[in-house]
Amino acid sequence: MVTDAQQACFEAGIKFGSLYHQFAGTPVSPDSARSLERAMAEAIENQPHCESVVVRIDDVAVADAIDHENGYTELTGRLMEVEMRIRYRGTTVRTRMEMEEGYPLMKLIGVEGGDGGETT
Amino acid sequence: MVTDAQQACFEAGIKFGSLYHQFAGTPVSPDSARSLERAMAEAIENQPHCESVVVRIDDVAVADAIDHENGYTELTGRLMEVEMRIRYRGTTVRTRMEMEEGYPLMKLIGVEGGDGGETT
Amino acid sequence: MVTDAQQACFEAGIKFGSLYHQFAGTPVSPDSARSLERAMAEAIENQPHCESVVVRIDDVAVADAIDHENGYTELTGRLMEVEMRIRYRGTTVRTRMEMEEGYPLMKLIGVEGGDGGETT
Amino acid sequence: MVTDAQQACFEAGIKFGSLYHQFAGTPVSPDSARSLERAMAEAIENQPHCESVVVRIDDVAVADAIDHENGYTELTGRLMEVEMRIRYRGTTVRTRMEMEEGYPLMKLIGVEGGDGGETT
Repeated sequence: MVTDAQQACFEAGIKFGSLYHQFAGTPVSPDSARSLERAMAEAIENQPHCESVVVRIDDVAVADAIDHENGYTELTGRLMEVEMRIRYRGTTVRTRMEMEEGYPLMKLIGVEGGDGGETT
Repeated sequence: MVTDAQQACFEAGIKFGSLYHQFAGTPVSPDSARSLERAMAEAIENQPHCESVVVRIDDVAVADAIDHENGYTELTGRLMEVEMRIRYRGTTVRTRMEMEEGYPLMKLIGVEGGDGGETT
Repeated sequence: MVTDAQQACFEAGIKFGSLYHQFAGTPVSPDSARSLERAMAEAIENQPHCESVVVRIDDVAVADAIDHENGYTELTGRLMEVEMRIRYRGTTVRTRMEMEEGYPLMKLIGVEGGDGGETT
Repeated sequence: MVTDAQQACFEAGIKFGSLYHQFAGTPVSPDSARSLERAMAEAIENQPHCESVVVRIDDVAVADAIDHENGYTELTGRLMEVEMRIRYRGTTVRTRMEMEEGYPLMKLIGVEGGDGGETT
């Protein structure tokens, strides 16, 4: 048996892995960051149980990562923050990707509702 | 608060989304299917908490999907089965991707150990 | 020795392969097609020697490809047309991806300027 | 009109862009580098006009790029060298990706045969 909360967390993980590995490596500059943020959010929001996705690409970090004459870099986890809200039946899961000790970490922030005692 | 079992399910989802969106679209033929299976499994097994990944590309499905003179197609979920085992602290999560009603579905098969009553 | 026109064609090919394999597999629906078109174009326009990229996702083809209850499909070459103009020194290369006999084909449309007799 | 040599260079570029953007971001460690090299080469060799692909992932560079406790990094152009030979009708194109001034560069090395005076 799998609980609704566990299923909700699995779904949340799928969205994070999808977003990251679909878009990592995309050429990005401060000028193209806004359209990429929006496309990433809208693409992943298509997936089942995905209520909202917010992607913020850090223009300062992008500018710092541009180390060559061409004026762009490749998207990595170091250059963005992501927040998602997934809903599976009665359970809502909140997740975030952010830098921690120099490494981008995908985190489960909260699991609410659904399975009784498992709420945050 | 997030339980170990919930965290384990989140980690399992990340691996599935990563594997799928990293490798979907790869040119594949029956001749190159074995090396791709192995690379996919070994790549994802690098990720934290990932105990084992088995990828089976269906050569018959690949051959059927080759609809042009070039002798290859692009990898999609319809052409493979994937099984993973994720371990987070005391919890083991088993997952599988398989076809269901013509659509590849990522499934949480079992959650064992860890959080007491939540085991399968 | 490599001529400017040959180098321009090589650069044009790089952009096409990049665009296709970066974005193939992205979840897409008619609602998210516009933001994806724009992000694809702006991302690839970051690359060197790339003057313009136009991506048109075919909403009718996307709607036809949605074969399950979730309301989205994955981006493939069958669902879009792409035009690019690459400029390397004095040579301009025009390329297009379009369907031909049921298969998406990346085509070199014209090579103009630069190497004398090689113009279209 | 497009010459065979120009078409060959376009095809060579497509393969390079494909290889790079399909596989950049893949989790890699010295232990999984061999299977990834092989899968990359065999996948791209499926594409039309592609005679040979050699991928060499630099284990020392991979080990240096591992900056966190998990023991892997993500594949980028800084971690590999790639050589390809493309043949279109009578023209053979040799290409290479290698580091130049700290940045991975895709280079057209030679264009041989085919269009008379355009050979190397």
